[in-house]
Amino acid sequence: MRLTVLGCYAATPRTLTNPTSQVLEINNQVVLIDCGEGTQVELRRHKIKFSRINHIFISHLHGDHFFGLPGFISTMRLLGREKALHVYGPKGIKEAITLLLKLGDSWTNYPLLFHELTSKEQELIFEDDKISVTTIPLDHRVYTNGYLFREKLGKRKLNVTAAEKYGIDKAYYNNIKNGKNITLDNGTIVSNSELTFDPPEPKSYAFCSDTVYDESLAEKIKNVDVLYHESTFLETETDLAVKTKHATAKQAAMVAKKANVKTLVLGHYSTRYKSIALFKEEASTIFPNVVLADDGKTFDF
Amino acid sequence: MRLTVLGCYAATPRTLTNPTSQVLEINNQVVLIDCGEGTQVELRRHKIKFSRINHIFISHLHGDHFFGLPGFISTMRLLGREKALHVYGPKGIKEAITLLLKLGDSWTNYPLLFHELTSKEQELIFEDDKISVTTIPLDHRVYTNGYLFREKLGKRKLNVTAAEKYGIDKAYYNNIKNGKNITLDNGTIVSNSELTFDPPEPKSYAFCSDTVYDESLAEKIKNVDVLYHESTFLETETDLAVKTKHATAKQAAMVAKKANVKTLVLGHYSTRYKSIALFKEEASTIFPNVVLADDGKTFDF
Repeated sequence: MRLTVLGCYAATPRTLTNPTSQVLEINNQVVLIDCGEGTQVELRRHKIKFSRINHIFISHLHGDHFFGLPGFISTMRLLGREKALHVYGPKGIKEAITLLLKLGDSWTNYPLLFHELTSKEQELIFEDDKISVTTIPLDHRVYTNGYLFREKLGKRKLNVTAAEKYGIDKAYYNNIKNGKNITLDNGTIVSNSELTFDPPEPKSYAFCSDTVYDESLAEKIKNVDVLYHESTFLETETDLAVKTKHATAKQAAMVAKKANVKTLVLGHYSTRYKSIALFKEEASTIFPNVVLADDGKTFDF
Repeated sequence: MRLTVLGCYAATPRTLTNPTSQVLEINNQVVLIDCGEGTQVELRRHKIKFSRINHIFISHLHGDHFFGLPGFISTMRLLGREKALHVYGPKGIKEAITLLLKLGDSWTNYPLLFHELTSKEQELIFEDDKISVTTIPLDHRVYTNGYLFREKLGKRKLNVTAAEKYGIDKAYYNNIKNGKNITLDNGTIVSNSELTFDPPEPKSYAFCSDTVYDESLAEKIKNVDVLYHESTFLETETDLAVKTKHATAKQAAMVAKKANVKTLVLGHYSTRYKSIALFKEEASTIFPNVVLADDGKTFDF
């Protein structure tokens, strides 16, 4: 599971910092999460092929999370995309994008499919044989969802050494991969688990931005491997966090602790602070395994 | 008159090239012309104060000319702008921006005033005591206007040496500045032109992008000092230019020659060419005074 942070700063794009956008590569599926202004340029900078992205998840309709989407969609057309592109986001996103394409008479040549969200309950919004995606309802100034990405448990892997030890003909290897037990010539049954390795433990990633501190969030993301939780402010600005419905680094750590996650990734930093190291310092007093998102940073989990 | 090119490449923003946007400083008025994605970052990069911009002129509603506008408008709000901001552009621009602000519940705190254009005739759309702005109807795939900016003729400047030579009392200097003749004590009338210098010649700038080659354009921009004319293609791609309603460098030069402009600025280059020097080479065979726009370049005219 690989996370590439294209942008992780709050509010406005600047010369050295970008608004929110991330690329998650999970079980060979590449998804884009949020799309602030300039996202397409950051994708190019990090040499991420536009064509690998088939699903875009937008948390909410503040500019710093989706003003890069119209340009990204238009560029896909200029690049000759033919495959369908799926966009998940709050109700209204379809009307906005459609209006912009209409005004420019720039309809896509590829199918552009919107999946508009209105529910305030957690819901499954995408599933294939590799991953599932569930919303994480968040509490921000406008209707907002985080997204929970889970790998599906893979197939067991053939243990060639074990199979050879039992003298099993290669013709049966596919049966083993498909979970079958094997009956040897002498009638002995060798159970599938003896002939295979456990598949890798499925990974999970929860993206939670933007949100006020909300203890109940922990239940929705219990035991995930990686939690990205916004930390726009430090504890000294807790009042401002409450007022603007954002969270502090300490609050993000409290959620991570309560949810029993393995790793907490902080981001969505206000640019008022001198150093983002302060966010890690503050969160680490509550939760041990904190890492800092930063523009251009890639994490392998 | 100072022109700063923030972006001058066609189609999509890339790591090293930006879509169309320019800042024109003319008679102390600072205006923004077009606003492709990333324009606000380029303004920051070139240290142009957002607050000096009160008028934005959008040529047409293709993404590479206006997808940076929602973010620019939103950032102005975050920066605490209070002054009115005027946006001129094709009909539909108000609905688009309004919808985006509504979806994000991010209404501006400052007056945001739209001046929507629908006429296919040249019209005066802004005038104060310093400048006037007139549309230049262009022929592109969607409704498009270029813009013609003209300085107003300034007041004549007092020639102190001449006034002293005639022994004119300083009390009359204001009358002279206001264009009056002066009657000396001996009854002689000294004409105002003898007591003043000519004001500087008013400058003019015509922005013409995007447009197919159109000979009749020359009439609308006759004798301007500076013409920015798009040159998306070279002559070898003339067919493609016709098909996509763009112009070649040679065609831009033909318009410049016919309109008898002083300087031709080329831009809106397709990124298919190895070097933009080719555009200058081609245009210079037709018209002598050609300069190349490039991202970040500033011209003083």
